[in-house]
Amino acid sequence: MKHFSSISQIDDLNLWINQALEIKKNPLQDADLGRNKTIGLLFFNSSLRTRLSTQKAATNLGMHSIVLNVSKEAWAIEFEDGTIMNGSTAEHIKEAAAVLSQYCDVIGLRAFPQLVDRVKDESEHILKAFIKYASVPIINMESSTEHPLQALTDAITISEFKTKKRPKVVLSWCPHTKVLPHAVANSFVMTMQKMDVDFVIANPKGYNLNPAITKDIKIEHDQEVAIQHADFIYAKNWSSYEHYGRIRKVKSNWMITQEKMKDAKFMHCLPVRRNVVVEDSVLDGPNSIVIEQSNNRTFAAQLVLKKLLQHG
Amino acid sequence: MKHFSSISQIDDLNLWINQALEIKKNPLQDADLGRNKTIGLLFFNSSLRTRLSTQKAATNLGMHSIVLNVSKEAWAIEFEDGTIMNGSTAEHIKEAAAVLSQYCDVIGLRAFPQLVDRVKDESEHILKAFIKYASVPIINMESSTEHPLQALTDAITISEFKTKKRPKVVLSWCPHTKVLPHAVANSFVMTMQKMDVDFVIANPKGYNLNPAITKDIKIEHDQEVAIQHADFIYAKNWSSYEHYGRIRKVKSNWMITQEKMKDAKFMHCLPVRRNVVVEDSVLDGPNSIVIEQSNNRTFAAQLVLKKLLQHG
Amino acid sequence: MKHFSSISQIDDLNLWINQALEIKKNPLQDADLGRNKTIGLLFFNSSLRTRLSTQKAATNLGMHSIVLNVSKEAWAIEFEDGTIMNGSTAEHIKEAAAVLSQYCDVIGLRAFPQLVDRVKDESEHILKAFIKYASVPIINMESSTEHPLQALTDAITISEFKTKKRPKVVLSWCPHTKVLPHAVANSFVMTMQKMDVDFVIANPKGYNLNPAITKDIKIEHDQEVAIQHADFIYAKNWSSYEHYGRIRKVKSNWMITQEKMKDAKFMHCLPVRRNVVVEDSVLDGPNSIVIEQSNNRTFAAQLVLKKLLQHG
Repeated sequence: MKHFSSISQIDDLNLWINQALEIKKNPLQDADLGRNKTIGLLFFNSSLRTRLSTQKAATNLGMHSIVLNVSKEAWAIEFEDGTIMNGSTAEHIKEAAAVLSQYCDVIGLRAFPQLVDRVKDESEHILKAFIKYASVPIINMESSTEHPLQALTDAITISEFKTKKRPKVVLSWCPHTKVLPHAVANSFVMTMQKMDVDFVIANPKGYNLNPAITKDIKIEHDQEVAIQHADFIYAKNWSSYEHYGRIRKVKSNWMITQEKMKDAKFMHCLPVRRNVVVEDSVLDGPNSIVIEQSNNRTFAAQLVLKKLLQHG
Repeated sequence: MKHFSSISQIDDLNLWINQALEIKKNPLQDADLGRNKTIGLLFFNSSLRTRLSTQKAATNLGMHSIVLNVSKEAWAIEFEDGTIMNGSTAEHIKEAAAVLSQYCDVIGLRAFPQLVDRVKDESEHILKAFIKYASVPIINMESSTEHPLQALTDAITISEFKTKKRPKVVLSWCPHTKVLPHAVANSFVMTMQKMDVDFVIANPKGYNLNPAITKDIKIEHDQEVAIQHADFIYAKNWSSYEHYGRIRKVKSNWMITQEKMKDAKFMHCLPVRRNVVVEDSVLDGPNSIVIEQSNNRTFAAQLVLKKLLQHG
Repeated sequence: MKHFSSISQIDDLNLWINQALEIKKNPLQDADLGRNKTIGLLFFNSSLRTRLSTQKAATNLGMHSIVLNVSKEAWAIEFEDGTIMNGSTAEHIKEAAAVLSQYCDVIGLRAFPQLVDRVKDESEHILKAFIKYASVPIINMESSTEHPLQALTDAITISEFKTKKRPKVVLSWCPHTKVLPHAVANSFVMTMQKMDVDFVIANPKGYNLNPAITKDIKIEHDQEVAIQHADFIYAKNWSSYEHYGRIRKVKSNWMITQEKMKDAKFMHCLPVRRNVVVEDSVLDGPNSIVIEQSNNRTFAAQLVLKKLLQHG
């Protein structure tokens, strides 16, 4: 593995989960592996969990980390090839990535989609440009269409909390006030396809995810039906994929309530808008595992970093 | 001591001062105490001294530090309970604090008051929410009503520079162009009440601090009278407390001048506006100890961190 | 050497180049020199290479580094003496520099010129104020009129890539859409005057650099003539010096093309605007050494830091 850009790179998910859980037992077991190495964490967008958990993971491996809020602290980056750079961008990705590769041994990258042009977003032009022009491993810290560190975290968490061999996992679309990306949902769907789970996606009509990703996964438009007997309910909003980047009116109330939850465990990648996505009582109740889930971000990041340092 | 939120937590101020001076003699004496531990420094407002001195203190203890400018780099945090989060805030303090507690071993927090609603500011809802929902020690790096790291620093500094057993210390209100909080003044007043000093507060009418804090401390409305025979003059502006958050016209000139100073030592928490709060000649003269004072910020922070690491 | 503010401080450039190349061979050779020491990197302006290469250099020397985006994270600094600070600035350089000197063992400083008032910019009031009021070494990370870490890097790079004893080096002005400073060009000119090279400056009429810096260096207004038989072409835009801070119309096309390059090596300090300053084909071709050049930033910074730590 040269870079970590997609959940599709994980062949043996169970092996990865077990390796991450081993790290969790003793996070300092490889405290020398990253000695004298630096990870550069490049953010084009806001971050709390991703930034801190990746810094923590790097620190556990003995690495230095440098955070760069690209648009605010450095120069605006141009990603188009062949363009005449007489506009607002000051540095081309070709130079930026090559230069960064000389100061950093690994580069983490967060770049959200614009959610205007589907073809452009799906081209993953920012992530791919970094992979193309950097000479060091790139870690996807959430790109246009994927958030693999989150999805690996989710798999670890389900593995820890499941009480039966093949739990029922429901990814349920939930309401939101903003136009949100599909990355978390996409990577979660791809991960569940690799896990021994009974997996259902629940979303309103008009909100089906990219069919090339959901494939033959059951999509249920009646939330009540979908979540019956669920062991895990993973709540997440996304904007429409068909009507790309739009928010479509939804008649019934898709907010997750205590009544809907029954005995299921509640998962969410966070940040979560209370009483919009999910009721207070769910998050404050005993079946919410969102905090434990966020804790696993460190070990997912640490496993990926460890693999890149060992084989990169 | 589980958290460090208020100067009221210091029982034996003299002991703390002596412990801080011991650290100052050899700042690296506990260089292993914080090994493999991380402090997260969360700023809702600007900072120079607080940030750098706390980072320095953490480094002296072998800790890693992560700085997060919350509003600029992460998600806007909601502090109200039970609210429907369909506005500008994206993450509730319940999740934010719990999540941060998993990546950080100690959390430092700076959150200034709005100075509009006195009841709200005095509720210390941001600081208290972090204390309530975090599972690791919280350090107050200036909240709505207190700045205890500064006040501990001030006590250390007075202790170093006093030339008599019971010096006269005057906290004098000074002019300013902006609406400023009461936190520094409050914590200083609370600290002087624990120290063997002859303490007077000088401020114009309409500028009395919270009487629940000043208690029976003498408040003098004539600056000239107040500063007679002073050994230390601590200059600080604050907005009106009675007419909460307002700037009231003051007839006489409360700026500290060389003429007023006589032989007193000049103290200020910095940043200070020259020739508004205090004349150039005072700051540039031999009796200003503001730089030495700021140096002690490191040792105050280091003492607090040490206590939290040892007993937290 | 107490501070590193100007290329003019380098007496024996060849010695410095060789020392930097020794560091490049084994960057961790002085990994203990900066132990328990902190460098504060103060940015009034954006930075990618300077920030990361200096952090990398500090890390190689075992130092901690603290980055402060002064205007965004701390208090606006006042540089005028004797001013009544009732405006937007909250802290005077006298306090800021003295305070920072207590938390940092070395201070790096980036402060671009306003390009409005030549006398003010040439006074280097920001850099000089830091040097005057700080009690620790200051490193110029690009000031109004100089960028010595870049120029030292450039000398190292030319030394590595030259294939003849006395190569021909051309500094060629190039087009740009923004009003840019003279610092990079100035420091490069000063450095070439210390090196055994055949040096020519090419720029349109009205774009001559400060004659006090260019001295008797040949200035050619015909780019084609200037670059004949060049071994190195160093491209850089700057605004007019005579018509200070203005962009003047230039008739012929000064963009560097593959056709113009012939066999010369292409250099630029980066960031570079593609197809404005230089054609894609040059940057993407085998004779561009801009990436190697940027790599040498680390070793230039490390050499300077080492000297300051050893003799500071």
